[in-house]
Order: sequence, then C-alpha cells, then structure tokens
Amino acid sequence: MGYVKRIAILGSTGSIGRQALDVIRAFPDKLKVVALAANKNARLLEAQLKQFQPKMFCSSAKADIDYGGEFLSIEEIASDPEVDLVIVATAGKAGLSPTLVALRAGKTVALASKEVLVMAGEIVVREASLHQAQIRPIDSEHSAIWQCLQGEESKPQRLFLTASGGPFYNYSQSRLAEVTPEQALQHPIWKMGRKVTIDSATLMNKGLEVIEAHWLFSFPFDSIEVLIHPQSVVHSMVEFVDGSLKAQLSSPDMRLPIQYALSYPQRWPNSELPRLDWNKINSLNFEPVDYDRFPCLKLAVAAGKSGGTYPAVLCAADEVAVELFLSHKISFTDIAEIVQKTLEQHRNISRPSLEEILIADNWARQCATHLSLGRCEEPERRSNPRIER
Amino acid sequence: MGYVKRIAILGSTGSIGRQALDVIRAFPDKLKVVALAANKNARLLEAQLKQFQPKMFCSSAKADIDYGGEFLSIEEIASDPEVDLVIVATAGKAGLSPTLVALRAGKTVALASKEVLVMAGEIVVREASLHQAQIRPIDSEHSAIWQCLQGEESKPQRLFLTASGGPFYNYSQSRLAEVTPEQALQHPIWKMGRKVTIDSATLMNKGLEVIEAHWLFSFPFDSIEVLIHPQSVVHSMVEFVDGSLKAQLSSPDMRLPIQYALSYPQRWPNSELPRLDWNKINSLNFEPVDYDRFPCLKLAVAAGKSGGTYPAVLCAADEVAVELFLSHKISFTDIAEIVQKTLEQHRNISRPSLEEILIADNWARQCATHLSLGRCEEPERRSNPRIER
Repeated sequence: MGYVKRIAILGSTGSIGRQALDVIRAFPDKLKVVALAANKNARLLEAQLKQFQPKMFCSSAKADIDYGGEFLSIEEIASDPEVDLVIVATAGKAGLSPTLVALRAGKTVALASKEVLVMAGEIVVREASLHQAQIRPIDSEHSAIWQCLQGEESKPQRLFLTASGGPFYNYSQSRLAEVTPEQALQHPIWKMGRKVTIDSATLMNKGLEVIEAHWLFSFPFDSIEVLIHPQSVVHSMVEFVDGSLKAQLSSPDMRLPIQYALSYPQRWPNSELPRLDWNKINSLNFEPVDYDRFPCLKLAVAAGKSGGTYPAVLCAADEVAVELFLSHKISFTDIAEIVQKTLEQHRNISRPSLEEILIADNWARQCATHLSLGRCEEPERRSNPRIER
Repeated sequence: MGYVKRIAILGSTGSIGRQALDVIRAFPDKLKVVALAANKNARLLEAQLKQFQPKMFCSSAKADIDYGGEFLSIEEIASDPEVDLVIVATAGKAGLSPTLVALRAGKTVALASKEVLVMAGEIVVREASLHQAQIRPIDSEHSAIWQCLQGEESKPQRLFLTASGGPFYNYSQSRLAEVTPEQALQHPIWKMGRKVTIDSATLMNKGLEVIEAHWLFSFPFDSIEVLIHPQSVVHSMVEFVDGSLKAQLSSPDMRLPIQYALSYPQRWPNSELPRLDWNKINSLNFEPVDYDRFPCLKLAVAAGKSGGTYPAVLCAADEVAVELFLSHKISFTDIAEIVQKTLEQHRNISRPSLEEILIADNWARQCATHLSLGRCEEPERRSNPRIER
C-alpha cells in the first residue's frame, strides 16, 4: 500500500485543522500534507508550515510568515493537481468558494464547515454529482450516519441526530435570558471553537446539522429527528425500513471522524484515539427534543424546509447575533429573536445562484446588526435582493 | 425482481419456525416455503402444511399428518435442488446433520439452533468455506454483529454481546438457589422456548452465544465481551480499530433478525415489525458482566476456549440439567454445578470428528444424569470416548 494521500487543509489553525494535523502526523506512510491555508493566526500557521513542510500555503497574513513554499490563493490550492483530498475547516462562509472549486476539480472534500452545505447545499451537491467528486462529512453526527450507512443497499427510513443539549438544556426561559457568554462557552462535553459552542447551547448548531444531513444524504426533513442524548456517546443513528437501527458510538473526540474521513473506506488503528470504557458508562439517556424551548433549532429546520436563500440568511443572522452575544451586547435569548426577525424580513429566492446566496448573506448581516440596534426597516428595504433584481 | 427465494424450515413448529412463517407470509412475491420439517407437533405442522402448501415435508409423526406433499428425510430436504435457503431452527443437536448436508449442497443456511456451531463450529465453518455456502445468523445478537459488520473492510477489534441479564441478575447466591422453574420461565423481555428461557436466566445462553460468535465471525474469545444491558434494545456492538463502535438497535422481536437473514443484503419494509419509540426509551444501561456470579457463562467461555469436545459436553450436560430443573428434580444453582462436574470428568478430544462429537454428547448426557443422582463415577469410566478409542 505505497499510495500516500495528499492532503490540503483549509483552516489549519482552527480547532478542526489542528486536530486534522494530529491525525496526519500519526500516519506518515499514508497521509501527506501538501498545502495549508489559514486566515489570521500567522504564528501558528508558520509553525505548522515548518513542521509539515507542505509545498503550498495560503494566508491573509502572508507578510508575517517566513516560509519558502509556494504562496497561492485558497482556490488555487483547492484545485491543485497535486492535491487528492481537501479538508474544508474554515470559519463561516469562507469555505464555500474553495469547496466548489475542489469539487469541480474532482477532489474528495472532507467537510467540517457547516456553512458550506447550509448556505449552498443544492449547488454543492449538484457540483459534486456532476464532477463525480465525493463529499465526506467530518461533523461527528454526519460521520456517524455515514458510518451507519456503509454496506446498506436500501435507503434508510429515518435519521436520528443526537444532541448533548448543551449546558442549559434544563434551564427555564427566564434563566436562559440571564446566561452569560462565559457560562455558554463552558460546553459540558466537546472542546470546540467559540461560535460552535454558543450554537450548541442554543441548539442552532443542531439545526444547521439537520440542514447538512438533508443535503449530504439527500434525505427529507420530515424524516430527520433530533434526540437529546446528554452523554454524547451515541453520535447519531439511522433507522432502516425493517425497523432495525444502527448507531455509531465513541468517546467524544473529533479526531475520530477526521481520521475516518481520511482513512475511508478503511479504518486505521490509532492508539491515540480514546476507547469507550464500559466500566464508566453506566447509562445512556435519550429524549425527543423540545423544539419550543429551543427556538433556534425550530427556526433552522423551518429555514431548511423553505430552502432558497433562507438557510443562508439564518446562518448570517446567527453569526452576527452570536458575535453580539459574545461581546455582551445582547442576551442569550436575543440570539433566536434576532435570527427570527431577520428571517421574517427576508424575501426568499428559490433555487438561488451562488451570487444571490452571497447577496442574501450580506443583507442578513446588515439586517441582524440593525435589528440589534432596534432599527432594521431601512436596510431591509434598501438591500433585499428580491427588490434589487 | 421476479426471483422468489425458496425456503425450507427445519423446526417449523417451534418459536423461531412459527415466526419465520409469519415473515414469509408477509412477502408472498419474494419468499416461498417449499419444505417444512418438525418433530412432534403433528397438529400444528399439518395446519402449516395446509396453509403454505410446500412440496416437501418431514416429521417424526408422519402417521398423524394428512398432507399430500412428498415425505422426505430432513437431510433430503436440506439438500433438495429446489431449496435455496434452509432455516435451521430445530431444538438441540437435531440441526447438526441437516446443516452440514445443506452447506455441502451449497445452500444458504439461516441458523437459529445454537447447538450447531457450539458443538461442531470448526467442522461447520470448514464445510461452509469448502462449499462456498453462507451461514446467516438468526440469533438477535449475532444478527446485530453481522449487520454492524456490513460494508466494513477492516477486521473489527472487539465484539460486545449484550445480555439482558435475565430475571435474576441482581439475586444473591442464596436467593438463586431458591428460584423455581415457574419464576425462571418468566423472562422479562423475550418470549422464547423453555430451554432458552432457562439458559437466559443462568446466562448459559450468553456463553453459547460467545462460542457461536467465535465461529461465525472467526473472532478470538479474548476479544468477545459480554455487557449486561437490561433493556435489550442494543442487541450487540462491534468496536473497530479506530475506536469507533457500531451498535444495532430494535424492539426485541425475533421476526427482525429472521427477516434480515431472508432479505439480506436488502432490507424490506414490514409494517408488522415494531419500531423503537424514543418517547418511551428513556435510558439504556450497560455494565460489564460479573462472570463469578454466573458460573454457567464462565464455564461456557472456558469450554469454548478449550475447544475440542468440551463445548458439546457443555451443551449436552446443560440440556440434561435444565430438563431436571424444569422437572423440579434439581435446584437452579445445581444446573451450573452439574455442567461443571461433567466438564471436569470429561477427557477432551481436540479437532474431533462429527462422530466423536456425538459420542461425547452421549457420554455427557449420561454423566450429567448420573451426577444428578450423585453417582457419576461409573458411567464416566465406562463411556468416556478417549478411553473407548
């Protein structure tokens, strides 16, 4: 098996990017980093470049980086002939364009950035299909579903996405309104970036995952269910037409889904990955989610079902609202309210182009920002893409 | 898909046989019963024959059956050219010979009778391999493992067989000694035959399943673990080399593993099969089994590891002991003692022939019977196969 897979990591200094490098480091005869791209953390990127010696790199802080490799744009890296697999682990919508470029070049894309499928699922899935390029999920839930679907010829009947419920699952509405960013950043199970941690607490994250699952597995929304599972041991489940379910379980460690996306269809032994210890797991709990108590989840599923530019607007408004919450400018429960009002003000475009999606994203950011200041009416009239056409 | 699978059921009047007929009835365009065999329940067999109109049948009570089909031996049925798949659901060792005949004829065997693999695993697996015939498990645990292995290229690292623990899992030794057959026949989850129900209460059943799993999946004993899981929702699990586990879950209903053995590699929608209801499942509990409290499990695993004729002796002694317990002649805790003493008296034959296995079985029945009367020494000396050779 002398074949070495050549990997490009977009977003190498983020949480997923760093863990991807941990995995790659463990398999020097199987995986090789040929390109790294990161946005602002020049110091860490430089250290990564010096350690992994990739041929290519990309950064918005090029001037601060002392490295002899070839400097390219993120799209050039995503389509370079010397790249076999592109890990897309950038923040926000930055992954959208390089994902499309990679798929058009027939690359396998290991996808960690939720926004790519949430904002432009229809376009992304179509391009993957047209160019026979594979999208492999890195999210633990979607990796679980993907693992459970292996070897199954018949289309499944239902998908169950599990959710830890976050740190506030049992809080009352009034108590939720008092939650501080510091409290919300303490996720009980997963160590993640700040945005995802807040999205986990509002369950917006689970809503985005429902939309992702819809596109990744071409599965109807009404057959995707969310189960609260506080222990985060069962990462998701698939129910088949005969009533049989498969679940994927593991210790909550993102290196496992990252490694599976790289090793697929094989599995590789890796002693650094933790094992479940059944002496310690006593009980696994499950309950259907209460959509009413977590309006962000409800909004996300509704936006996904409506389709068009709604999911992009959802994403953008949420990003703005989370940022405002983290800066102590709005309360925890305001996040859902701002997202909801932004969606209400939006005039949807069905089957949008990539440009229309990006315009909607931009509009939603303005709208959410202004809503937070109590004055959204004007920008809505000024920049709604439907009016501008 | 005009192809109809032609099924022979050996043991059609037992619990598994009847449920297999339920499944077949639901798929008249996919499955056809071409042969039924049963031992003594002539009335039920006759009713089944009249309903399903198979070409062939077999029964030890032929004289009591009014049916126009062809009367054949169980081996003739198992190897008939018009049979595609043989369901082996006979009691005790009766399935051994027809299973071997079916495999030698290249038939697919859907196996419910534990004794076949426990007594003669090495021979059975070798014949299946020689004749490229497939053995599909019907036991819920082995079906679960088989389902979890689908699509996996890499050999798994550990198998976890789940066990409900039976009705007496938390009983003390002294309380166990007082258990009556009537109490032991009330299994909390599964409706099964009498022998299997008692074996579930002693955990002998789980021990036999460990031996079966060893042969079915060519898996070392030290990598097969038993987990107590009282709810019987997770039917078993597989751990892979990367630390990921897959579990199969469903309502405890034997029709599902039966149907999967018939529909494989497809899955068929069947509205009669129950769905798991996550509004009702609150908690799934797991704990490693305590081998010391359930000596039958420990004896079975030890007999499996030792191999040779030990597993056949284990099976036979257990069958005798369970029968004596059901007739109120020995206590619940005597079952393990009789099995243990019989194993201790046995002189093992490694890589035994089928004949040697059957001689050991016969010896063990005599030994266990005499032990229960407090006088085993004599028959042991008289009929131990090692001495007779």
